Amino acid sequence: MIRWIAFDADDTLWENEKYYHDGQALLAQLLAPYQPAEVVEAELLKTETSNLSWYGYGIKAFGLSMIETAIRLSDGAIGSPEIDALIRHLRSMLEQPADLLPGVLETLQLIHNGYRMMVITKGDLLDQERKLANSHLEDFFEAYEVVSDKHDNIYARILKRHNIQPKEFLMVGNSLRSDVLPVVKIGGFGVHIPHRFTWAHEVVADTSSHVDGYVQIDSIKELPAILETLKHQ
Amino acid sequence: MIRWIAFDADDTLWENEKYYHDGQALLAQLLAPYQPAEVVEAELLKTETSNLSWYGYGIKAFGLSMIETAIRLSDGAIGSPEIDALIRHLRSMLEQPADLLPGVLETLQLIHNGYRMMVITKGDLLDQERKLANSHLEDFFEAYEVVSDKHDNIYARILKRHNIQPKEFLMVGNSLRSDVLPVVKIGGFGVHIPHRFTWAHEVVADTSSHVDGYVQIDSIKELPAILETLKHQ
Repeated sequence: MIRWIAFDADDTLWENEKYYHDGQALLAQLLAPYQPAEVVEAELLKTETSNLSWYGYGIKAFGLSMIETAIRLSDGAIGSPEIDALIRHLRSMLEQPADLLPGVLETLQLIHNGYRMMVITKGDLLDQERKLANSHLEDFFEAYEVVSDKHDNIYARILKRHNIQPKEFLMVGNSLRSDVLPVVKIGGFGVHIPHRFTWAHEVVADTSSHVDGYVQIDSIKELPAILETLKHQ
Repeated sequence: MIRWIAFDADDTLWENEKYYHDGQALLAQLLAPYQPAEVVEAELLKTETSNLSWYGYGIKAFGLSMIETAIRLSDGAIGSPEIDALIRHLRSMLEQPADLLPGVLETLQLIHNGYRMMVITKGDLLDQERKLANSHLEDFFEAYEVVSDKHDNIYARILKRHNIQPKEFLMVGNSLRSDVLPVVKIGGFGVHIPHRFTWAHEVVADTSSHVDGYVQIDSIKELPAILETLKHQ
């Protein structure tokens, strides 16, 4: 019986990745004299991935990786006005309001009386806190966990802290890799809601071999029906 | 009766600010053709302070503020090799081992049987987690709280989560502003251990008007004696 529902935040509750896409488009534009856009895209991903274990997730890491990529791909020829433009874009990303995805507010209103709810999200601590405050969703959640990564042992630690059995726990998110598979691995239930933008780092190439224990839905609006089905299992 | 002891991490358990000083020295050197070092120092602090509410604390925020300051103070004349040098310094900061301050290990060994202990620290989540792991102090602490700021309401939330009464709570740290005064404000006890480097942002200009409820010591080695005194109050 599900007692706790946890939600991923970025691209599950509110828009996020689209602002990263805009940043990538700006970088490609600034680097157009040096490299074609597809090289810029591939090299940015390479830089982000290689910086991940040092910078972690979030907007500041993205900004530093953009600057590093700009310098490398232009062989040091890019000027500081261009780097300044990247920093200003970064700042504009931080200033974005929390733009709720369709159906989020209605769904939370529908289900919050029947379940305890929390958010589990990666990214910059302050930025995630600001987005939660801006979202006006704060009152729905008993806990707001900003984590450095979403491995199964990190989920296990959160469940332990809140005294939750895995079979009572359901996690909703747009990333199969981060939100669903590690939760399934520890014995929880996953609900995968793909977002039209998913960062390449989060894409799982082959899911056919993965175990059961999760469903995929097109919109968060289908979540109440899933919860009803689970009640009768 | 004190039951819980919380420690700040950076410049309380291990060195931190000295690596920021090195970064500042590098920035002053790169900007020497444009501005004297004291202007660089003042302008960097101004940039960091103005970015604080967007970037939060930590090394990535520092790096982005250094780059922004370099571009502004050189009026866009600084080249990408110099910015690249700043990024490389940033990376070297993240790669620093957790260099324990004198007396830390012995003191924790002395007191850990009598108290429950936790760490409360600001900064980049992943970086703080890495430093704790590198420090080999992990087993002393029941909780490791990385927070976006150290206001009294944030301390109150942590105490509530761990079911701690303020009068049972003692916080040890190098910043009067972040580690001591907000804890005193909520009814806890503070132990201030000044560090030879303290970031200007953390310096409180006038403490004479502040209430009692804390002591200042020169080294963490004096902490066991303080705890003994408090037992008899």
